[in-house]
Amino acid sequence: MSHQTKIDQFVDVATMLADTARSVVRPWFRRGVDVDSKKDASPVTIADRSAERVMRAILAERLPGHGVFGEEFGQEKAQADYQWLLDPVDGTRAFVTGRPLFGTLIALFYQGEPLLGVLDQPVLQERWFGVKGRATEFSSRLGGKAGTRQDVTLDRAEMSCTSPEMLELAPHDNWKILKQQARRMTWGGDCYAYGLLALGQIDLIAECDMNPWDWGALVPIVQGAGGVMTAWDGSPLRMDGDRTVLAAGSASLHREAVRILGAGR
Amino acid sequence: MSHQTKIDQFVDVATMLADTARSVVRPWFRRGVDVDSKKDASPVTIADRSAERVMRAILAERLPGHGVFGEEFGQEKAQADYQWLLDPVDGTRAFVTGRPLFGTLIALFYQGEPLLGVLDQPVLQERWFGVKGRATEFSSRLGGKAGTRQDVTLDRAEMSCTSPEMLELAPHDNWKILKQQARRMTWGGDCYAYGLLALGQIDLIAECDMNPWDWGALVPIVQGAGGVMTAWDGSPLRMDGDRTVLAAGSASLHREAVRILGAGR
Repeated sequence: MSHQTKIDQFVDVATMLADTARSVVRPWFRRGVDVDSKKDASPVTIADRSAERVMRAILAERLPGHGVFGEEFGQEKAQADYQWLLDPVDGTRAFVTGRPLFGTLIALFYQGEPLLGVLDQPVLQERWFGVKGRATEFSSRLGGKAGTRQDVTLDRAEMSCTSPEMLELAPHDNWKILKQQARRMTWGGDCYAYGLLALGQIDLIAECDMNPWDWGALVPIVQGAGGVMTAWDGSPLRMDGDRTVLAAGSASLHREAVRILGAGR
Repeated sequence: MSHQTKIDQFVDVATMLADTARSVVRPWFRRGVDVDSKKDASPVTIADRSAERVMRAILAERLPGHGVFGEEFGQEKAQADYQWLLDPVDGTRAFVTGRPLFGTLIALFYQGEPLLGVLDQPVLQERWFGVKGRATEFSSRLGGKAGTRQDVTLDRAEMSCTSPEMLELAPHDNWKILKQQARRMTWGGDCYAYGLLALGQIDLIAECDMNPWDWGALVPIVQGAGGVMTAWDGSPLRMDGDRTVLAAGSASLHREAVRILGAGR
């Protein structure tokens, strides 16, 4: 099978995974629940586990030679060249508090590098699709189109990070300098913020304590929209890296950010 | 005119204001813009000013004896018993970064106290409607229904606040104790977080540096859903108050929060 044909097949499978996860996750959103119920029976946990289970079943059927890694049910076929990383509900707090800005993340890695990524918002029915070397596709009824802002200097940059508590786990404090020099910081966002960066609504994201299933899907999406995504020191994101993530809308803004964040060691 | 007939008339006018603001604000969301454009020409400013202008025109036509106060165009008829407070785009950062969680706030005060409030999300087409003494109404295609959680103790409470930067302006630091004792803090939200509290998705919000047009519409919405909304010391919110706001899903949770926040003076 040609490389191109293979990729097209993976795109089909990823689309099926995202469609299925959407239909599984959607009904649990804003579903009233006894707040004292056991953790295992909470809507977000049920949504997460059910969606991962069904995505694993699809992959076992369609691409039986591929590896799968999900937060809930661990790793299968860890030695395969192709590895699917699944996170059905990225943004637990957003889901639990009724904000429709969590996301389903589906990534395909080839020999340790992200090849394909989907970010899907099941409630708003928005989807970002990225494939290495291709332009990012975005579909939504709420407006917006794929493409980062290229002409933004640091002092004009809209910066974003999920929470200050996350940054307390950072390897050093230089994110405070970056935040101070950026135009403005908006808190909250999880994976959805990277989607907004790919639409040119946000210019800069610095986060840490990130797992491969948190960033894997987002790399092809951000890069296919004209952005750059690396660790804080500017090195490529790796499965066994330092868990820092830096995303910028343009190469020049990325350089400015690495100059500050990379100097903190 | 009977009190009831008057209220029904005000509900009609408030509905017309919210419908109109929605149609004016909506087209400016995620609209690409040169980031270096002048502040006056930014999409959020245009949306804000246009919507306030059209709402003022409707009020002048329908309720000419009423006062109006909006952030952009100041106060009219400041001596009238009835005062409309308008904030077409509450949550500038959310709007600017493409998050559809900003809101249009429309409040009617009678002799200094909130009588009626609308929170409208123009992009998602969600609307909360509160009238003093009536049950809060909520309409949305995304799910959820009006009604706070009543059985949540502080250690189980989902807490929310727009930003840590806002809390740096607080009169004292006791919000840190409250945050520590709550189950979890989610950052971001603006007026939308109060809407989520009225749906039983969030249990506790502590904010400060708040203007009457930020909280006026939210009081009837939160209270009509079973919640309590006051200043941090438990006193009623006043136009000339200390600008702190505390919202809780139940009277008992509110008491727990006031015990902590009210002791900080």
